[in-house]
Amino acid sequence: MKDSTLKEKCLSRKLIYKGKIITVNYDTVLLPNGKTSGREIVHHPGAVAVVPSTGNSILMVKQYRYALDRETLEIPAGKIDPEEKPEICALRELREETGYSGSLVFLGSFYSSPGFTDEVIHFYLADNLKWSPLKTDEDEFLRVTSVPWDQVMDLIKMGKIEDGKSVLGILLAKHKLAG
Amino acid sequence: MKDSTLKEKCLSRKLIYKGKIITVNYDTVLLPNGKTSGREIVHHPGAVAVVPSTGNSILMVKQYRYALDRETLEIPAGKIDPEEKPEICALRELREETGYSGSLVFLGSFYSSPGFTDEVIHFYLADNLKWSPLKTDEDEFLRVTSVPWDQVMDLIKMGKIEDGKSVLGILLAKHKLAG
Repeated sequence: MKDSTLKEKCLSRKLIYKGKIITVNYDTVLLPNGKTSGREIVHHPGAVAVVPSTGNSILMVKQYRYALDRETLEIPAGKIDPEEKPEICALRELREETGYSGSLVFLGSFYSSPGFTDEVIHFYLADNLKWSPLKTDEDEFLRVTSVPWDQVMDLIKMGKIEDGKSVLGILLAKHKLAG
Repeated sequence: MKDSTLKEKCLSRKLIYKGKIITVNYDTVLLPNGKTSGREIVHHPGAVAVVPSTGNSILMVKQYRYALDRETLEIPAGKIDPEEKPEICALRELREETGYSGSLVFLGSFYSSPGFTDEVIHFYLADNLKWSPLKTDEDEFLRVTSVPWDQVMDLIKMGKIEDGKSVLGILLAKHKLAG
């Protein structure tokens, strides 16, 4: 069986919502079995996530997440601006959210939830951290906290880090640092 | 500073779209600095993801992802049905997508992208696999493939596994099996 046999063909597209960050489409598609179905797709500009390592610790941010109605402990991250390169975005978000600049090591690019969104996140490890603050988004509120590398796996197991991209970034960085 | 100072309060809600899988709301919120802002939130019923291990290999599925317009290599996963418990859903998706049942080990629950969606994914390792096929969703098309554990990190590094939840599940399972 060839790969192409799994493909779904777009028959028509309906724009549901064009927002500030996301765009939602409802597409009618032709399935491989000849039937039609609907696909609800959330388009997203893409994001970066950074694991800032001081050597002994990871710098993380506590922020309120409206979608979850609570604070989460996450690695620095943010949406890519139009035309912005992921590396530039990663350095900007790192400085805005933690006050530090650093050297980036690329860890990979992964899709958040390809069943309904095209959001891709580019992951980086940042080391050689230097204090170099950049004015933060004035409507963004967060607190920086330092998590020792030797405690982070326990925090994940205890459910204290609920954000998937943060856990993914930390595990990728841990693997990279280990060799 | 107390945690509550970061909270954003909902002032009004506008329903943008109520679909088959997702619901999209636009909420106007009161920020901690007294200003108002908008929040575009995609509500999702939640999902499960399973890392089926034969001991030497992981069973994975190739499927066409309409949001990305290509096939991806992923661990078995799927949406939770109304009232369905995550463990039941995990066993159902495993049987539907691979034909196997197994014993589940819980690996954690993580949010896919809390900046814009409340989707949570419950992760499991499945071992003691036994052939026990369940009729698949008739509009779901996929192919099962076996990936040796000792090759999976190379596939991730080469960008052959682009789905974030698959990489997260595999790294969590690897960590669990190692320790």
